Amino acid sequence: MTDALKILEDVKQGIVSTDEALAFFKKEPYIDLDFAKVDMKRSLVQGHGEVIYGEGKSVGQIDSIIKTMLDNDQKNILVTRLSSSKSRRLESIEGFTYYPEAKLAVIGGVRKADGLGKIAVVSAGTSDLAVSEEAALTAEFFGNETVRIYDVGVAGLHRLLSRLDDIIEAKVIIAVAGMEGALASVVGGLASAPVIAVPTSIGYGASFNGLSALLSMLNSCASGTSVVNIDNGFGAAYQASLINHMM
Amino acid sequence: MTDALKILEDVKQGIVSTDEALAFFKKEPYIDLDFAKVDMKRSLVQGHGEVIYGEGKSVGQIDSIIKTMLDNDQKNILVTRLSSSKSRRLESIEGFTYYPEAKLAVIGGVRKADGLGKIAVVSAGTSDLAVSEEAALTAEFFGNETVRIYDVGVAGLHRLLSRLDDIIEAKVIIAVAGMEGALASVVGGLASAPVIAVPTSIGYGASFNGLSALLSMLNSCASGTSVVNIDNGFGAAYQASLINHMM
Amino acid sequence: MTDALKILEDVKQGIVSTDEALAFFKKEPYIDLDFAKVDMKRSLVQGHGEVIYGEGKSVGQIDSIIKTMLDNDQKNILVTRLSSSKSRRLESIEGFTYYPEAKLAVIGGVRKADGLGKIAVVSAGTSDLAVSEEAALTAEFFGNETVRIYDVGVAGLHRLLSRLDDIIEAKVIIAVAGMEGALASVVGGLASAPVIAVPTSIGYGASFNGLSALLSMLNSCASGTSVVNIDNGFGAAYQASLINHMM
Amino acid sequence: MTDALKILEDVKQGIVSTDEALAFFKKEPYIDLDFAKVDMKRSLVQGHGEVIYGEGKSVGQIDSIIKTMLDNDQKNILVTRLSSSKSRRLESIEGFTYYPEAKLAVIGGVRKADGLGKIAVVSAGTSDLAVSEEAALTAEFFGNETVRIYDVGVAGLHRLLSRLDDIIEAKVIIAVAGMEGALASVVGGLASAPVIAVPTSIGYGASFNGLSALLSMLNSCASGTSVVNIDNGFGAAYQASLINHMM
Amino acid sequence: MTDALKILEDVKQGIVSTDEALAFFKKEPYIDLDFAKVDMKRSLVQGHGEVIYGEGKSVGQIDSIIKTMLDNDQKNILVTRLSSSKSRRLESIEGFTYYPEAKLAVIGGVRKADGLGKIAVVSAGTSDLAVSEEAALTAEFFGNETVRIYDVGVAGLHRLLSRLDDIIEAKVIIAVAGMEGALASVVGGLASAPVIAVPTSIGYGASFNGLSALLSMLNSCASGTSVVNIDNGFGAAYQASLINHMM
Amino acid sequence: MTDALKILEDVKQGIVSTDEALAFFKKEPYIDLDFAKVDMKRSLVQGHGEVIYGEGKSVGQIDSIIKTMLDNDQKNILVTRLSSSKSRRLESIEGFTYYPEAKLAVIGGVRKADGLGKIAVVSAGTSDLAVSEEAALTAEFFGNETVRIYDVGVAGLHRLLSRLDDIIEAKVIIAVAGMEGALASVVGGLASAPVIAVPTSIGYGASFNGLSALLSMLNSCASGTSVVNIDNGFGAAYQASLINHMM
Amino acid sequence: MTDALKILEDVKQGIVSTDEALAFFKKEPYIDLDFAKVDMKRSLVQGHGEVIYGEGKSVGQIDSIIKTMLDNDQKNILVTRLSSSKSRRLESIEGFTYYPEAKLAVIGGVRKADGLGKIAVVSAGTSDLAVSEEAALTAEFFGNETVRIYDVGVAGLHRLLSRLDDIIEAKVIIAVAGMEGALASVVGGLASAPVIAVPTSIGYGASFNGLSALLSMLNSCASGTSVVNIDNGFGAAYQASLINHMM
Amino acid sequence: MTDALKILEDVKQGIVSTDEALAFFKKEPYIDLDFAKVDMKRSLVQGHGEVIYGEGKSVGQIDSIIKTMLDNDQKNILVTRLSSSKSRRLESIEGFTYYPEAKLAVIGGVRKADGLGKIAVVSAGTSDLAVSEEAALTAEFFGNETVRIYDVGVAGLHRLLSRLDDIIEAKVIIAVAGMEGALASVVGGLASAPVIAVPTSIGYGASFNGLSALLSMLNSCASGTSVVNIDNGFGAAYQASLINHMM
Repeated sequence: MTDALKILEDVKQGIVSTDEALAFFKKEPYIDLDFAKVDMKRSLVQGHGEVIYGEGKSVGQIDSIIKTMLDNDQKNILVTRLSSSKSRRLESIEGFTYYPEAKLAVIGGVRKADGLGKIAVVSAGTSDLAVSEEAALTAEFFGNETVRIYDVGVAGLHRLLSRLDDIIEAKVIIAVAGMEGALASVVGGLASAPVIAVPTSIGYGASFNGLSALLSMLNSCASGTSVVNIDNGFGAAYQASLINHMM
Repeated sequence: MTDALKILEDVKQGIVSTDEALAFFKKEPYIDLDFAKVDMKRSLVQGHGEVIYGEGKSVGQIDSIIKTMLDNDQKNILVTRLSSSKSRRLESIEGFTYYPEAKLAVIGGVRKADGLGKIAVVSAGTSDLAVSEEAALTAEFFGNETVRIYDVGVAGLHRLLSRLDDIIEAKVIIAVAGMEGALASVVGGLASAPVIAVPTSIGYGASFNGLSALLSMLNSCASGTSVVNIDNGFGAAYQASLINHMM
Repeated sequence: MTDALKILEDVKQGIVSTDEALAFFKKEPYIDLDFAKVDMKRSLVQGHGEVIYGEGKSVGQIDSIIKTMLDNDQKNILVTRLSSSKSRRLESIEGFTYYPEAKLAVIGGVRKADGLGKIAVVSAGTSDLAVSEEAALTAEFFGNETVRIYDVGVAGLHRLLSRLDDIIEAKVIIAVAGMEGALASVVGGLASAPVIAVPTSIGYGASFNGLSALLSMLNSCASGTSVVNIDNGFGAAYQASLINHMM
Repeated sequence: MTDALKILEDVKQGIVSTDEALAFFKKEPYIDLDFAKVDMKRSLVQGHGEVIYGEGKSVGQIDSIIKTMLDNDQKNILVTRLSSSKSRRLESIEGFTYYPEAKLAVIGGVRKADGLGKIAVVSAGTSDLAVSEEAALTAEFFGNETVRIYDVGVAGLHRLLSRLDDIIEAKVIIAVAGMEGALASVVGGLASAPVIAVPTSIGYGASFNGLSALLSMLNSCASGTSVVNIDNGFGAAYQASLINHMM
Repeated sequence: MTDALKILEDVKQGIVSTDEALAFFKKEPYIDLDFAKVDMKRSLVQGHGEVIYGEGKSVGQIDSIIKTMLDNDQKNILVTRLSSSKSRRLESIEGFTYYPEAKLAVIGGVRKADGLGKIAVVSAGTSDLAVSEEAALTAEFFGNETVRIYDVGVAGLHRLLSRLDDIIEAKVIIAVAGMEGALASVVGGLASAPVIAVPTSIGYGASFNGLSALLSMLNSCASGTSVVNIDNGFGAAYQASLINHMM
Repeated sequence: MTDALKILEDVKQGIVSTDEALAFFKKEPYIDLDFAKVDMKRSLVQGHGEVIYGEGKSVGQIDSIIKTMLDNDQKNILVTRLSSSKSRRLESIEGFTYYPEAKLAVIGGVRKADGLGKIAVVSAGTSDLAVSEEAALTAEFFGNETVRIYDVGVAGLHRLLSRLDDIIEAKVIIAVAGMEGALASVVGGLASAPVIAVPTSIGYGASFNGLSALLSMLNSCASGTSVVNIDNGFGAAYQASLINHMM
Repeated sequence: MTDALKILEDVKQGIVSTDEALAFFKKEPYIDLDFAKVDMKRSLVQGHGEVIYGEGKSVGQIDSIIKTMLDNDQKNILVTRLSSSKSRRLESIEGFTYYPEAKLAVIGGVRKADGLGKIAVVSAGTSDLAVSEEAALTAEFFGNETVRIYDVGVAGLHRLLSRLDDIIEAKVIIAVAGMEGALASVVGGLASAPVIAVPTSIGYGASFNGLSALLSMLNSCASGTSVVNIDNGFGAAYQASLINHMM
Repeated sequence: MTDALKILEDVKQGIVSTDEALAFFKKEPYIDLDFAKVDMKRSLVQGHGEVIYGEGKSVGQIDSIIKTMLDNDQKNILVTRLSSSKSRRLESIEGFTYYPEAKLAVIGGVRKADGLGKIAVVSAGTSDLAVSEEAALTAEFFGNETVRIYDVGVAGLHRLLSRLDDIIEAKVIIAVAGMEGALASVVGGLASAPVIAVPTSIGYGASFNGLSALLSMLNSCASGTSVVNIDNGFGAAYQASLINHMM
């Protein structure tokens, strides 16, 4: 809050007129109060990670945002929902790495893992891979160690139970499932950590593009489980990272 | 098909006119072909069990249907969706027993169990009790031994697994669940018997009167699972009984 | 259950340490109890049929799964939801047969029919052909004799009734219908066998990709009828096969 | 169109000023053109039947509307959606008859049947009785002979077929069904007359207050079938009467 | 009903055995009772018009159905939902005419208009043209004179009112509208003829592919209006033709 | 903006410390900028009308809010969604008037009409009366002259057209309709003033508690029409009043 | 109203027969009363702006409508929903300007801004740009000064608040938002001007093509906010222009 | 894991037969592995808090569960969804306190606050009070300090901003809102702590019992926000407590 304080001091000392100060508070009322917060929120710790939502943006737009960020000392950048064709035209950027399964690029590498523990990404089937990887890589970008527990749908319970140790040891769990929304319930019952459920749009028939899994997950959140939007692997990982960095 | 054959023979021999025969075929075209089948279907084996759907019928109507049936040698009668207030006014019928939790009455006792094996009724929570009991008692009425495995929602997986033997031994499984539609998936994955899933309307919030459980169950039916209408414990037990009497 | 027993014997005789045994039970707690069951479930009788869900898998992935299976003595393999373009790149596998209408391939031939009786696949219109064939061929793969009763929508009741014998003789009936969800009701009323209804996504206007047929079928399941997911011909056939092999 | 003509003649002869005429055309632009039509529409033939929609109106309001009509030589009046408690307070009106099952009252009797033929009201189950009777009595009120074919749901096809003659002979068919929306399809396939389908809100589970039946009926209207709103027995009968009076 | 009668006479005289007769009744139970009816229903008057639903059929299939029909003295054939690319490959059939706006072909010309009066096809906007033309041409195919009243959406009421004469004179009215479902209400209020409303899937935003227009039309059918499925111009015209041929 | 300015001046002159000023900006950052605006928004002109949403508040709560307002020189108060039973316990407040049809009370009378012109409240049927009156009385409370045009549903177009002058003369139009969502379209086509449409929850069958009317109205808003929430007569009148006081 | 008056005068003087006059009133009953109004409505002030909805129209059709308008002295024409490929084939029309982001063309320039004040177009994210620009350019076409306040979603409240002055000064506000339907609520709370909310179809997962934003906006319209159809930037701007030209 | 180890040791030493050991592993496979975990999960720390879901349980059932718990040294018990009438019959239990607004009882007091920081419960309107209090009291029961920030709906942004300090200082935020689902977005944008959003079923019109708020919240969860089921204040507080006890 030094900026606001300084303005007020400046007003007191006549360096800044009251009209100028008023203009400052009207135009940027939260800069010294909140802007840093918001920034900190958006990048967890200032300078450690900025995010660009790639969908609906042209390669040119993404390229120019990245460059502006790099020029402003944002060293670690995450680009989500980036098609492989777009990624090819950004490859020349220094430090650019593309992850085709997650449709996600990282510039400048990921933050060093400094969370309380591991974030487990549990998924039901191979068709949930893209969303799972978006979640896992996002979590890693924000400084978390992850453990991938894939293809453990509840119809094959023995496979899920064989990974019980990893599930129980995780500090936060992200449960990704399309048709098998049941996964969140079962994992929520086995673990004592917070579970963030991500319904996926993969499925057919009465899966209705993820609506079925979404409703199923919402109805299971009796104990320690909450839900994010359909296919929102990024959002789940973002919240999981916040939780894993609680102190 | 003797009736139709006989008519045709009678026509041949002049006992029945062609007009009368035509009238017969037009009026009851399926009597000798199908009527018995349909009856057999509705009562599994003629004389062993007739069903009255009690909802929307007055006590007087139910009473008179029961009496007509008894007069026609229907000795075992099931009345479903019967409120306890209506049941009190039918108590004087001989052999009448009311099951308040299932909102169901049986007259003349149930058929002797003669199926291939047991029908397991598995349910997630105490709030699914009414539908579970409707299913279990209906199955018993139609001549099946049942095993009740209640309150084994997937959030408490250890309770479900502690009943694994009963689940694996059952010839047919009825999985009843409201908010926890997940139960059908998990049971379907553990057992090799056919599973009939019954979504229940119990729940709150985004359970939408059973729609959430219904969709969840439909999306899980990859292997050996099918679904009946919301709260339709009777329908599940009826089909389970057909399957348990396959030969 | 010999594996678990053997471990315990080995522990008793000091061949295996308690720590190793514990690790065994934790890692694969259901191998000797359930894994075979699950396998048996997934392939009905071990070695008689393994299934690959082709949608969303690359040709390379499918090819490698098939080869692993063949190497492990899985002689009969079913691949569902396989596009004709993908199938062309798998033709060289020995014993590979592709059924374009059902979008399904069989490797190593189908199991010998050894069920209780026939499974009838009844469908309403020509547009339901793909789902009907998926159901019929799946049933045959799992060792069932089938009878196809196609294009018998209820708007042309005389055609349906002309196949009455086949319908009545079937041990299990699969009713496939898109706009004409009514078919399941009518067939369910005519037959005494269990009916598994498959809504299809074919239709226009207020058919809403199969939702209308699904609801219609669920509301008809008063007597011996249950429902699987929209377009899930495989699931219906799988359960029908389980029922047709009851003993 | 004599009124408009007369005004114009009056203008021509100076009896009416152009301003007055203009006011006339602006205020009641359709009196001489359409008002009679609309009236004729609403009462089929002027003086033969006026309708009051009873729901949401107080007994006092209904009473006063009836009296105004009677004072204006409306001799035959139909009141729909009239609860039995309200009806008791209207009994003293001369010529008042209440039909409790249809929740409908007729004052001054029904119009003499003068249609082309009979209107058949076909219904699936006893729970559809109220809507069926609303349709049948409305049709009779507007001068149609009716034939009631009740409790012929498609699950018991033999009962429906035993009434085939009546169905085929009808000039118009009203098909009333709740859960069994299938009835409209089957009847539509058997008959060559126009079929008007009425979904009813009776049902449970996934019937969703008639939505399931509505969708089912809409998807069946390939040949000669159309649909009115859920529970709208009156609307179906009104249109059926229009059709039965075509000339 | 001569066929059934004749069989019975033949049985009586020993020309046909009872087994053969039984087979006849089982195989074609409705030939002499209903098959002609059904045919007559499907083609209004035998030989005057047969319909092929083109969607989902290959050019080869359509071509072979047409030829079979022509060989069986079906001289007038209607093919609906026929894409222009398919139509080009059928042009060589004698008497083949394609109507690109309606995506519909007629072979052998339309039946001579012999209805009670005209069928008016009223539509709201230019985007409803395809469905309107499907309705108008279908009506003409089945022997009806039509009058097209297009682009008279209720937002421009003066245009609709300028066609009032045509609306009032029509014997049956087909109201086609997408976003402006209101059209059916307004036309239903102006005319005394039966109105069949066709919601169309054209629109954007909250039109939800015709659902909005469908609900709007269902809620307006207080007086003489009923509804067919979304985009079902054929179905509306078919029923309109039945009504226009009432006698 | 005098408050903020004054604080800054005070800071300059040392009357207020920078810490105190900072606290002021943090605690009430918008008082001098926006609070008056917001107040002005909520009461249009400060002191001329405050609104209490009565639903879900106890009589005691409402009573105490009213008294606090009166003590703070709020002379004109509107209470919406107030049941008649609650209203009886508030009658003793001076200047309290209750309008039972609109379920609305006014304390201290309405503001003098000072808008640009009249607000017309147009409604389709008698069942829309409550919402219409809520709209009309709210508009009057905020200082608007209103004209009520009730029971002019589009099925009786001549009644609507007979009120054409009033519709055309209005400065703003509120169109209230339940089943007849069509009203908004038709009125929107006739008038050149802004139209605010209010769907009502009255109706039956497929009206789905106002959803049908809502969708219908949204799809009609091509020209000058917008929509508020179902039954939100207050909201429509509030916006209409803002528009009628534009200057 | 001169036309109608003149006709009546002509009738009076015998120049026009009563039959001819009657025909006039029947055919064009509202020409002199309403046609001009409707025109004025559609183009705000006759000759200042006509609109063509481009979607679903061919380039040829659009071209010919434009030329007819130009021939009839319509100098300012707006074409909405015009793809860039179509626009290229219309470029040769004199005075034709295409705006690719808004998919909109203007011929003859926009009307001079003559409203009461500015219309603010506020939008949540970059993905709402197309709808926002459609709204802004439409408002300008109809003679309004606009202020664009883009990319001010509520998740970054400080950016929204930094534009507070522009929001408060606007005479009418158009709030465009997809996933963040919240924007309308927040803006509605900050401003005292009427707010017209436009939900957009951009989003993923449970945004359901704008349904989520639509419902969110409807539920926020407590004070001065109303809603138009999903993506209907034109409709919002049209109504905003009406409001901004109130006098 | 001592139990499992001990059994294995016992087997080794011949104290337990392999059959007995096998039975042990089959019957309670997870007792020594997971049962404690699950308990710990359900009561956070064994003995510190057990929860009874009161809805659908009789007073007698609740009473007996409470007593069993007390007998087993569960000293702190939470009963949710408990009506005030039921609560009156449980008052005599020692240490029983009922909170009528939250419909919740606590026996034995709440756990001492030992979390990382405060949990803020932010709610939009007075009608969200019940759910907010359920959340706040549940959080306190599980050992969290809470701060209540009520009635800060986004339409009155200045009230929300005046509580900015409390929002920013909270370690976890629970955002409760019915119609104003926007609250979660705005709070999520202001704070850097994890936000758990609870949609409530309060509202009218198109709020559809909380569905609108649910969708709105799901679409806002871009950064650090997740959602629980409608009205699930308990579930939100449970997860918030898990997060606030991360270490």
